[in-house]
Amino acid sequence: SNEAEEYENYFALTLLDRRSDKRTDTKWLSKKQSHPTTVYILFSNLSPLVTLGGGAESSQQSKVKLCRLCHKDVEQYMNQTEDTTLIFLGVELQFPMSLLAACNGRILQEDEEDGLVAWFALSIDSASAEEFKQKHEDTYFLHPPMPALLQLPEREAGVVAQARSVLAWHSRYRFCPTCGSATKTEEAGYKKTCLKEDCPSLQGVHNTSYPRVDPVVIMQVIHPDGNHCLLGRQKRFPPGMFTCLAGFVEPGETIEDAVRREVEEEAGVKIGHVQYVSCQPWPMPSSLMIGCLAVAVSTEIKVDKNEIEDARWFTREQVVEVLVKGNQRSFFVPPSQAIAHQLIKHWIGMNANL
Amino acid sequence: SNEAEEYENYFALTLLDRRSDKRTDTKWLSKKQSHPTTVYILFSNLSPLVTLGGGAESSQQSKVKLCRLCHKDVEQYMNQTEDTTLIFLGVELQFPMSLLAACNGRILQEDEEDGLVAWFALSIDSASAEEFKQKHEDTYFLHPPMPALLQLPEREAGVVAQARSVLAWHSRYRFCPTCGSATKTEEAGYKKTCLKEDCPSLQGVHNTSYPRVDPVVIMQVIHPDGNHCLLGRQKRFPPGMFTCLAGFVEPGETIEDAVRREVEEEAGVKIGHVQYVSCQPWPMPSSLMIGCLAVAVSTEIKVDKNEIEDARWFTREQVVEVLVKGNQRSFFVPPSQAIAHQLIKHWIGMNANL
Ligand SMILES: Nc1ncnc2c1ncn2[C@@H]1O[C@H](COP(=O)(O)O)[C@@H](O)[C@H]1O
Ligand SMILES: Nc1ncnc2c1ncn2[C@@H]1O[C@H](COP(=O)(O)O)[C@@H](O)[C@H]1O
Repeated sequence: SNEAEEYENYFALTLLDRRSDKRTDTKWLSKKQSHPTTVYILFSNLSPLVTLGGGAESSQQSKVKLCRLCHKDVEQYMNQTEDTTLIFLGVELQFPMSLLAACNGRILQEDEEDGLVAWFALSIDSASAEEFKQKHEDTYFLHPPMPALLQLPEREAGVVAQARSVLAWHSRYRFCPTCGSATKTEEAGYKKTCLKEDCPSLQGVHNTSYPRVDPVVIMQVIHPDGNHCLLGRQKRFPPGMFTCLAGFVEPGETIEDAVRREVEEEAGVKIGHVQYVSCQPWPMPSSLMIGCLAVAVSTEIKVDKNEIEDARWFTREQVVEVLVKGNQRSFFVPPSQAIAHQLIKHWIGMNANL
Repeated sequence: SNEAEEYENYFALTLLDRRSDKRTDTKWLSKKQSHPTTVYILFSNLSPLVTLGGGAESSQQSKVKLCRLCHKDVEQYMNQTEDTTLIFLGVELQFPMSLLAACNGRILQEDEEDGLVAWFALSIDSASAEEFKQKHEDTYFLHPPMPALLQLPEREAGVVAQARSVLAWHSRYRFCPTCGSATKTEEAGYKKTCLKEDCPSLQGVHNTSYPRVDPVVIMQVIHPDGNHCLLGRQKRFPPGMFTCLAGFVEPGETIEDAVRREVEEEAGVKIGHVQYVSCQPWPMPSSLMIGCLAVAVSTEIKVDKNEIEDARWFTREQVVEVLVKGNQRSFFVPPSQAIAHQLIKHWIGMNANL
């Protein structure tokens, strides 16, 4: 059926099951940390360790690949300095049928192997990173990670997004925002607890203890005539690049209202109907890009120069020229892995055969 | 047209235009603070000041109303103590046509009235709150604000959600999470800047300076047969209440993946297709509830007792009995203003005539 297919698709595109229940299972975690099948991905200054894979024999561009290390590769860097951070990412997802077959219906003994392949992210300080690179010549830390990370396969990009967001939270939220005291890390890297005994953050549940996710709206704005779309550019973009407008969702705001507010603020265009399309985590440092179609009810553009440099209506033909025919002489849009590209493609109605 | 209607609906349901451009216009802000048309809403310990309106003559239940105060009512409490926080909320939304007519095409002189009705939220300390209540006998601070706030008209609920979320951020994020130093408030309450000169948070743009919005997924889970839905309850709920499952979106996760993870974690049910329906800000302290329909591909329920107390499949007839016929003997669901109610209603296909 259709539903089963969507479920299978989900499995095909997802690498890890987060297994948040294991975050408090310190015995399991410490066993997995030194287990030979465990996978480590390494970070320094929020940049992941990668290597250049393939490409040599073929005419294809060589592609960035995430380095999957084992415990032996990294053990000397663990628990080394204050700047070392270890985060449990999850276990490799196994399709339920095979899992069932593997376990053969038995209940696992306390000490028995559960067969789960655990993944961890390890962030090391700059000196250790230098040392590591010298020992492993074909590897390097990808900086800046965006847009280069978009070249990773989708399943790996998701894992890097998870790891990088949580690591960024650790590097920027070292102190308790409620009282300014030092904090300690718990739950395998997903919780920070204030060390001051009488801090109000210790009474009840507070978001100060949990990693931040910033919702951002990004929208393909459609002209009332249906045949133009509104794309803009920021000063810091490469020359010629235009993309969908975007902005942070504010407290007390719906997704639809945020879309209306941002488009009106940045380009002076008024929006009627808003429709959710899809979303994408964006680990810079920890945004959730919520992609929408937005139908304009006005057409005059008034660019707010504080926010963007330019915004224009582009015809469907212009966009098809760039997106389908690859003719990027007049302007270009972000690469296909970016949600902006997908929103634009969604609009020109070519999801199926592009 | 349909689009124009949606735009008008949006205006009918929205009270304020946030006018974020005014947040840095200190001259304008200080003028508006003491302007006679300016509206203040008052908070103490994150609870808004309300009064009981109407209901006396009619047979209707008397309803909670937000108190709209003027500068004179509050001036003695402004800038009083460290615990006083003032936030600019926006200006009353005017339909563009009337705005155009009012301005009559002229450009406003520097000192001229712009006619904008500004709204501020003022949070005062407990002693001042006591004093205020004694002077204004018919008012009180609504505590706990939820679910009582759901009784407010939708337009006012949105403003309270905005104010309460930003105030909660001020009360819990007093110190710089990057270095633990004190901070100062800027941009009319929407930004906090570290006071330590060489703090890394002062280089570049960081989310540590901006209010937090926590995306949460809430989902109406549909049985593969299409005629049952999955509702659960937490221990702290009133006896008999069941509602949609929900949970925080984690870093690096899409909305759809968060829905799948949470349903599988809490109830052991596997999800195929996920469809966004609508969202609702939930200012406890600052969540954005993202409402979805989720189609199950498995049916066996395994409740995780750490997360919820119970989860069951309910038949369409059972839900219709409770929602449409108001027969709440066997169980009940949250009130109509809550997004969970809307999701359940959406499923039973009665949006139009309930
Ligand atoms: N931003 C957050 N704020 C509060 N709790 C969170 C957050 N992120 C994750 N959590 C977890 O979610 C639990 C509360 O979930 P709930 O019962 O749905 O409110 C907490 O006990 C935390 O373990
Ligand atoms: N959570 C946030 N993180 C970073 N910037 C934010 C946040 N919320 C609001 N902002 C504002 O958004 C601007 C950056 O937007 P952008 O250019 O879209 O990345 C900043 O200069 C801030 O004024």
